[in-house]
Amino acid sequence: MQAGAQIEELVSMLAKLPGLGPRSARRAALFLLQNKQRWMLPLAKTLQTTAEQIAPCEICGNLDSLSPCQICRAPERTNRLICVVEQVGDVWAMERARSYNGHYHVLGGTLSPLDGVGPDDLRIASLLERVNTGAVDEVILALNATIDGQTTAHYVADRLKASAVRLTRLAHGVPIGGELDYLDEGTLATALHSRKPV
Amino acid sequence: MQAGAQIEELVSMLAKLPGLGPRSARRAALFLLQNKQRWMLPLAKTLQTTAEQIAPCEICGNLDSLSPCQICRAPERTNRLICVVEQVGDVWAMERARSYNGHYHVLGGTLSPLDGVGPDDLRIASLLERVNTGAVDEVILALNATIDGQTTAHYVADRLKASAVRLTRLAHGVPIGGELDYLDEGTLATALHSRKPV
Repeated sequence: MQAGAQIEELVSMLAKLPGLGPRSARRAALFLLQNKQRWMLPLAKTLQTTAEQIAPCEICGNLDSLSPCQICRAPERTNRLICVVEQVGDVWAMERARSYNGHYHVLGGTLSPLDGVGPDDLRIASLLERVNTGAVDEVILALNATIDGQTTAHYVADRLKASAVRLTRLAHGVPIGGELDYLDEGTLATALHSRKPV
Repeated sequence: MQAGAQIEELVSMLAKLPGLGPRSARRAALFLLQNKQRWMLPLAKTLQTTAEQIAPCEICGNLDSLSPCQICRAPERTNRLICVVEQVGDVWAMERARSYNGHYHVLGGTLSPLDGVGPDDLRIASLLERVNTGAVDEVILALNATIDGQTTAHYVADRLKASAVRLTRLAHGVPIGGELDYLDEGTLATALHSRKPV
């Protein structure tokens, strides 16, 4: 590519974004260069100001321009419920479901001894602190249904046992709109085991 | 999404990039926010400087930090060959093929009366000018093999007829690595018609 080192640098940086490979990064760079005033300079500015303004919430770890974040501040949300999630993206996913009215606690990942991620690398101590204030009735462990997620959930549950808070996890079962034929055996077995009266 | 207007703005801007939908834009925004120093601020800076430094080449329309661009300046490339393409991305594609040693001319699109794109909206006049200097032996019409591309190629060929320059187009045929069974009838018919002695 003779397009100049400057463009190549932009392409390689865009290619680092999840969801963009080298080929689509090149298309994106071209799109930006052809729409400089409309998209490229505004995007540069937004990236800059967002990077400056957005920081993790000191209470729950969610990303926001305020700390405590909008969710922790919201007067209509109950602080007696804490939903524990792995990542900020999971907070966004939960909020999209529009079914939860409590607070969150972002762990910042899962335990992973092989990668050197231990309990001290996650925001577990601050979760215990929040729970031990006594204001919390229930902790919902909404970690991913992966091995790492469930290992971490077990660990967190263990650490919370002493605090006598109510501990729950998300239900497993057939996804809404899911077809049985395409479902893995584990999910189907769990769904059968947890069947509900009609 | 309660993630704050600032993050939402970033997500919606990223979602404008070709290849990124709303969902992957959200993932990309999260990735950037979690790697502020390493990726987000450098990307903001690169976007800004690239937007300032890169401009269309005054001769061929290619994007570069120099004008005339590196391709137009390269002493080892012949200026007796001009390859006419639709977009800057096509220049990059041709350069990746590493088989062309001449100059380019970027039209900036295709004729499209329905969208109000006429000959004056494309860089056709400057192509005629370049050809009419007399330094050019051959013009290769490397426009997309789409209806719009071919219509535009016909039009350009028509305008160039008077200049007595040699006019060629890219060969059509079976793509390298392509299987006949998956090929459309038009391509296969063309490949058969243009068959070559072994």
